[in-house]
This record gives sequence, C-alpha cells and structure tokens, in this order.
Amino acid sequence: MTSTLSDYSKLCVHTFTTKPWNLKQCVEYYSRAGIQAITIWRNVLENIELKDAKAILDDYGMITVSIARGGFFPSTEEKLRLEAIDDNKLAIDQAAAVGAPSLVLVCGADGRQSLETSRDQIKEAIIKLLPHAKASGVKLAIEPLHPMYAGDRSAINTLAQANDMAEEINSDYVGIAVDVYHLWWDPNLEQEIKRCGRNGNLLAFHVCDWNVPTIDFLNDRGLMGDGCINIPRIRGWVEDAGFTGFNEVEVFSTKYWATDQKDYLELIKNAYLKYT
Amino acid sequence: MTSTLSDYSKLCVHTFTTKPWNLKQCVEYYSRAGIQAITIWRNVLENIELKDAKAILDDYGMITVSIARGGFFPSTEEKLRLEAIDDNKLAIDQAAAVGAPSLVLVCGADGRQSLETSRDQIKEAIIKLLPHAKASGVKLAIEPLHPMYAGDRSAINTLAQANDMAEEINSDYVGIAVDVYHLWWDPNLEQEIKRCGRNGNLLAFHVCDWNVPTIDFLNDRGLMGDGCINIPRIRGWVEDAGFTGFNEVEVFSTKYWATDQKDYLELIKNAYLKYT
Repeated sequence: MTSTLSDYSKLCVHTFTTKPWNLKQCVEYYSRAGIQAITIWRNVLENIELKDAKAILDDYGMITVSIARGGFFPSTEEKLRLEAIDDNKLAIDQAAAVGAPSLVLVCGADGRQSLETSRDQIKEAIIKLLPHAKASGVKLAIEPLHPMYAGDRSAINTLAQANDMAEEINSDYVGIAVDVYHLWWDPNLEQEIKRCGRNGNLLAFHVCDWNVPTIDFLNDRGLMGDGCINIPRIRGWVEDAGFTGFNEVEVFSTKYWATDQKDYLELIKNAYLKYT
Repeated sequence: MTSTLSDYSKLCVHTFTTKPWNLKQCVEYYSRAGIQAITIWRNVLENIELKDAKAILDDYGMITVSIARGGFFPSTEEKLRLEAIDDNKLAIDQAAAVGAPSLVLVCGADGRQSLETSRDQIKEAIIKLLPHAKASGVKLAIEPLHPMYAGDRSAINTLAQANDMAEEINSDYVGIAVDVYHLWWDPNLEQEIKRCGRNGNLLAFHVCDWNVPTIDFLNDRGLMGDGCINIPRIRGWVEDAGFTGFNEVEVFSTKYWATDQKDYLELIKNAYLKYT
C-alpha cells in the first residue's frame, strides 16, 4: 500500500534536475526550500575542489544520497574498457570524498557488439571495481535503463536483468536503482521490485514522469503528474519491498531548465506531495 | 540457423517505406525492381477506389501480404472505442477487397488509464472483430510495439504480452506480427519467437534497423545494416519457429524519404541481401 507523502523529509533532488545551477546554488536553494537531500551529478564537481564541495554540503547539513553517474563499461575496444574502469574508480573516490554512500551506474552499451557481450563486459567491470568500492565504503547501484537506450546507453533494460546481475555478483556493495521513467511500462515490474527488495538489492528510487507524447529521447522528461506514469503505485511497491530511502527527483527537461529554477523548485515540491 | 537470402522472392516492401509514392507508383516501381510483394498502408487507399487498387495489383501480379494498419482500440471514452471498432471493420473490408490475407494491428494505448485497462480494452475489441474478420477471410496480426510507445501507441510492448493475448483469444484469425525494431532489445525474444511459432501465431516478420543514436521517436528508423540490430539472427529464430512468409521491409525515415525513391529501392534491395 502506498503511504502518503505529507512532508519533504524523504525528498531528494538531483543536481541535473536544476541543471542551470552549480553545486553551491543547488545546495543553498534546495536547503532554503526545505529540501534536505541531494544527489550530485559529476558535472557540478568539475569546477570545484572536492573538499570545498564537502564543506558546502556540511554547512547546509545536506544529506548526499548518491553520486550520478558511473558506468559506460562496454566497448569493442579494450582501451576504452580500461579507461572506463579508471573513470569509475575516480567516481567512487568522488563519492567517498563528499560522503555519498552510493554511485549510480548507467552501465552502457556498444551497438557494434551484441547486448549479451555488452552485459558480460558490464559484469566483469563491476566485479573489477568491487574491491575499490568496498575499501571506499561506496555501493554501486546498477540502474536498468529504458529499452530505447539499448543501442548506446545501457544493455541492462529491465529490472529482471538488473536483478539477475546483482544476484550473480552477490555483494553487499552492489545493488540497484529503480527509476520509474525506465521501468514503468514493464508488466513484470511489481514482482521484480519484490524480488529486488527481498534480496537486499533495492538501493535507490528515482521519480519523474513520461510525457505523452515524448518528443526527445533524453531531455523531455516530465515532472511528476505531467505524464502517464502511476508513480504512487510504483512507490507503494517499492516501499512494500522494504525500501525506506529517499524519493529522488531526476528530471531532464529542456522545457523546465528554461524557466526560473527557484519557481521550478516550488513546482517540484508541489508535484512531490501531489503526484509522487 | 539463418538461411542465406540470395534472391528477392521473399522480399516485401511496405508502401510507407516509400512514402512519397502513391499506390500505383509503389506497385509499378517495386515490380520493375523485381519485388513481387507489398504491404499496403491505408493512406494510399484513400484516393483510389478499392476495385481500381485491386486491378493495379493484379495487373502487375503483385502479392499483397498485409494491410497496415488497424488497431488503436483503447480509450477512456466509450464513443472513441466504438469508433475504433467501426474503423477496424472498414480496414478488414479494405483488406478483403484488395486480397490481403491479414491486417496488422497497432493496438493503441491511452495514457489517461492504466496499461492493464488498455490491454483489457484491446482484447475485448479484437474479440468483437473476430466474426467480421472470419467472414472476410482476413487474419488480425497483433504487433507488439517498443516500450517507448507504451504511453500512446501500444499497451502491448513485448512478444510475451502478444503471445499471452493471442493464446487467450485462441482463434485461427488472430496472430502476431514480429518486428525487429520493436523487439530486438528483449532478452526473452528467442524463446518467445519459438513459443509464437509453436502455437501457430507467427503471421508476419518486419525488418528495419535501430540507428545509433536514434534522433526521432517515429521517423528515424534505419535501413537494414544502418544500425545495431542483428537481423539475420532474429530472422533465423523466426524461420526456426516455422515461419515461411515474407520479410517485410518497413522503414519510416525522414532521411530516406527525402532521397530519390527509385535509388532508395536499390539500396533496400542491397540491404536486403546483405544485412537481412
């Protein structure tokens, strides 16, 4: 059964949701708006020292839920696969430095090879990263992506596949990020969320909405309530599966980015209580 | 095992693939190019009498594989659902009039209601159409569409769902159209194609390719070989499942529509032998 969201204590916003803002602006304005949790995209860490980023987060008592994003492991070229491992080690270091307990993985795909080969390479890469993740205290969250990204962004396109992989790897440092945008259409979603929770792999829950029609593959996500996803129902399944973490608002939207971001934050808060 | 395609005897082209052409142009130019089979989209039947369409097809000895498309059954509004039934009866009549043995169904979805409700309405509508389909000698081919269309174009997004529905309806006049564009990413595709064939439901096979990146939800399909789908592998599964029908080339492409369609037909023929 779906609980009622009556306050913002479980609301987390992704910095990419308010893409025009830098990290300091995100932290300051989220905090002023009564939002206490953040997921940090790596682009906002590019022009700031990690210790300064940590200081800003601490100044505002902001809870860092996750770093987004690592991954992009598969390639037909070994050199690129090795570079991806190094980049993910760096992402783990960034997560540890700002106190984020987990790193979201957009696992990647390479259209020049089969999805099976890409998945094998993903699994191999995650296993290689495990010692570093463990030593850093950072969990890796596999995020299954919508099948429309199977050509380039992720060879893991259903929660069943993510569950399979997490269970095969079987580590306390590997779990799954469930995102309604990627998974809402899946007829097996309820049972796979149950399975994910039962096996202790449910690390994160991301929300936004699917616009009808959607006009852009990447940056036409809707705010909760804009589209056709029954988000409360899916949140109910996630909570029934034992999840007690944050509801992370992750909206890529050219439309909303063009608006005043402080006003937008109020829309997000409203949509969070009404449609999440 | 995948057979080799060494001639055009199993090649069928959809009229929408060469969208700039009217029916007469399609039939004439396909025939001149050595292509003997056609799937007719209803838009090219709008400005021609059905008996004249039939005469053109007969003049060139063209085999009509299917009519595309019926469907779009679900709606929150009963009036629209009833109109859809009438429109599908008309589509069945059109199929019968031009000698097409089947009608492809893009089943539809309504984002204002759940996918389950849309699927119930689809099933109900197909059952209502069955007497008319049977009396007309026209089979209905459910086409599962890519999950990116779950918000508006189809609540049936995997071959497993289409198999479920066809088996539940259990009629000689209901089967399935397998399209690589919609289904290539599915980890259960091979087993579901086997199941589809085993149960006598494999009515049609559509090919094109998934461009990497894809830039438009509708009209950026690739010609076979342009993208990342292993089409011969899927065709092998389809043939192993007992399918002996046509390989239907269905490409929606703003890019190719802007080119000389006779040159494009030669590209299609080349891509058919090399990459299908």
